[in-house]
Amino acid sequence: MAKIISVDVVDVRFPTSLSMDGSDAMNKDGDYSAAYVVLRTDDPGLSGFGFTFTIGRGNDICVLAAEQRAQPLIGQAVDDVVHDLGGVYRRLKSDSQLRWLGPEKGVEHLAMAAVMNAVWDLAARSAGKPLWRLLVDMTPEELVDVADLTYLSDVLTKDEAVAMLAELAPTRADRIAELAETGYPCYTTSAGWLGYSDDKLRRLCQEAVDSGYRHVKLKVGADLQDDIRRLRIAREVIGYDADLMIDANQVWDVPEAIAWVRALAEFKPLWIEEPTSPDDILGHAAVREAVAPIGVATGEHGMNRVLFKQMFQAGAIDFCQLDSARLASINEIVAVYLMAKKFDVPVCPHAGGVGLCELVQHLSIFDYVAVSGSLEGRVTEYVDHLHEHFVDPCVIDNGAYVLPEAPGYSAEMYESTLAEFAFPNGRYWSGAAGS
Amino acid sequence: MAKIISVDVVDVRFPTSLSMDGSDAMNKDGDYSAAYVVLRTDDPGLSGFGFTFTIGRGNDICVLAAEQRAQPLIGQAVDDVVHDLGGVYRRLKSDSQLRWLGPEKGVEHLAMAAVMNAVWDLAARSAGKPLWRLLVDMTPEELVDVADLTYLSDVLTKDEAVAMLAELAPTRADRIAELAETGYPCYTTSAGWLGYSDDKLRRLCQEAVDSGYRHVKLKVGADLQDDIRRLRIAREVIGYDADLMIDANQVWDVPEAIAWVRALAEFKPLWIEEPTSPDDILGHAAVREAVAPIGVATGEHGMNRVLFKQMFQAGAIDFCQLDSARLASINEIVAVYLMAKKFDVPVCPHAGGVGLCELVQHLSIFDYVAVSGSLEGRVTEYVDHLHEHFVDPCVIDNGAYVLPEAPGYSAEMYESTLAEFAFPNGRYWSGAAGS
Repeated sequence: MAKIISVDVVDVRFPTSLSMDGSDAMNKDGDYSAAYVVLRTDDPGLSGFGFTFTIGRGNDICVLAAEQRAQPLIGQAVDDVVHDLGGVYRRLKSDSQLRWLGPEKGVEHLAMAAVMNAVWDLAARSAGKPLWRLLVDMTPEELVDVADLTYLSDVLTKDEAVAMLAELAPTRADRIAELAETGYPCYTTSAGWLGYSDDKLRRLCQEAVDSGYRHVKLKVGADLQDDIRRLRIAREVIGYDADLMIDANQVWDVPEAIAWVRALAEFKPLWIEEPTSPDDILGHAAVREAVAPIGVATGEHGMNRVLFKQMFQAGAIDFCQLDSARLASINEIVAVYLMAKKFDVPVCPHAGGVGLCELVQHLSIFDYVAVSGSLEGRVTEYVDHLHEHFVDPCVIDNGAYVLPEAPGYSAEMYESTLAEFAFPNGRYWSGAAGS
Repeated sequence: MAKIISVDVVDVRFPTSLSMDGSDAMNKDGDYSAAYVVLRTDDPGLSGFGFTFTIGRGNDICVLAAEQRAQPLIGQAVDDVVHDLGGVYRRLKSDSQLRWLGPEKGVEHLAMAAVMNAVWDLAARSAGKPLWRLLVDMTPEELVDVADLTYLSDVLTKDEAVAMLAELAPTRADRIAELAETGYPCYTTSAGWLGYSDDKLRRLCQEAVDSGYRHVKLKVGADLQDDIRRLRIAREVIGYDADLMIDANQVWDVPEAIAWVRALAEFKPLWIEEPTSPDDILGHAAVREAVAPIGVATGEHGMNRVLFKQMFQAGAIDFCQLDSARLASINEIVAVYLMAKKFDVPVCPHAGGVGLCELVQHLSIFDYVAVSGSLEGRVTEYVDHLHEHFVDPCVIDNGAYVLPEAPGYSAEMYESTLAEFAFPNGRYWSGAAGS
């Protein structure tokens, strides 16, 4: 019987700041990075891979936190771990000394995400299934057992959750068959980074339309006149049949957000994303009321399920953009999906970064098949970079994620990538290119 | 002109789990710890001391984060730093790569607190004043410049903040003179840790009353019948003229909190502290409405000013218990005090831990003298342990903090303490006592 024998956590950083990929009004020079967790077993053919995503400095702090958080896994039998994914999560989470550092937020929560992502990858590989299929093969009761419903019982009880899942269980196979045909719809942010020139913006918008995308997203918030000019270019290219989204990355106070978004209303954005502090539930509710019918979206910095609970309770958002490497993996993400279903808010996961697209495709498929049963208002982010570092990269066809088939959570990076981009001792960072 | 030449951050841990000091329903075995920052200058007589507080494991992660966060201070002239305390804060905070790890929460925010606490200590020492006096000697405009009002303008503008402070400025001296006579009222938690026996509880309650305390706080939430028995003992000793507070340390969901507190209502607690997740603004509002006239208090895990803004907006709390080592030092704390004033919520800072009492005495004095001008409903926590490690320990007389007079933020620990309790290489942890 295989055992987990060690945990390696690697600080992987890509020099994305050089190309302005990922530039926005708040994050001008990120080096997309991952605290990358490998759970090794004594079976050379079986490991678990997971990560959290950061943008450079401080990735080493997440690495240290993940190393500590994963310690209790060492020596555990793989079978015990993969057949008690709720229990493993609860035990890792129950360290009250580490809890003090959050609770359930910031570095410690990112580390929990990285470790549990690797545990879920291990479970899917052990079962020989892609993660989404591992999830949709679970019964309603099994899914509710792994979901972390702590602090949520005022809006969702276990019985309600089971009942919601049970309603859709008999028709799961139909939706799997449908997605196998169509893929899961996505949109691209690759066109709209703030550091790109107008010409590049125009060209990338055209390429997006030509590739079958029905949604394009642009970064805004640094300069209003620039935003007006860039949105005009985007609408010239994509027209008004396609959807245009805008993303301010938290740069505004609430009154400023309202004024700025109103000044861009003529371009009819589908949503304004991250208009203000990601912690400001009541602020998002105020913005939403003021800028309707423009929708409000947030979630990539949504720290935990308690925040999302309140976003739903307060009617603060039209679109929930949970993050696969910031929430504490499937255990917390399933809880957020269940609440979103109850409050009838579509989930459009955040992606991009390092490997987030690889992860979120599994989540969106799971949502449609087992939780929401709907594609209405749902579109999952896709950003076209860094996929070449992943062994099982996501595949996009005609503006949709193709269902992944390889076992696991698609989180494994190539060894050659680690050798090149491990920080600070990989070839890139230690060599001439890094200086 | 003195310069900051180095930053040392020490992992200091005290084996408090051995005595059950600090035990509660959530935190059963904390080893009270500090990530302790020393800003050294090339003047051997001038350093800045600060820290954040943790309860053991993970303190090393805060140390690493504080080391990184403090790097930009090295080489800075002390005069430049201490005369631009708003600018220093904004520059340290502006690292967008580190921001990603929060933003403004968790380990990175604790580290920011530790570093900026040391900066404020340096500023007060440089001025030859205790921190509270440095603050009350600042003009309303100077105080508002150091306050971080980002994301708060929907409830508080700079002009409003200046006006509020200006109203009380002419009478500051009167309140200083008053506090010099009376001290600032405090309450004790030392009596009520969950791990203490009934006899010890009875004895400590009696000692509290005999020492002049008018408030006693007990931990609750592990077992309802135990809580009823312990509250009965406490009321037998202190009577109903003194105030009794209860503290659940986040163990309940919202419905459970309401039911449990109602079951303890016969003992007429002044407040229920941390009834549920510290992130749950709407949950606290629901508990407050359901258990009135028992008050709701929270804040020791209140992650940042945006959370407190919403607690005030939602009418969620009767008492604001901000934490001096979790909020990002004076810059963020002043902002919370200003909002509390506007919403007429008394601030009763969290203390205990390691050195938190030493810090909060300065805050409470500042609040009375410069911000609230009121003692009504205000009482600051005091816990009687670990003060012997501080060079300028707080002094309690007749249930009140005596005004500190030594220059600084009272944050400096003895060198001998560091030699003994530095982790893992101090004498205690490396020696026989630690094994």
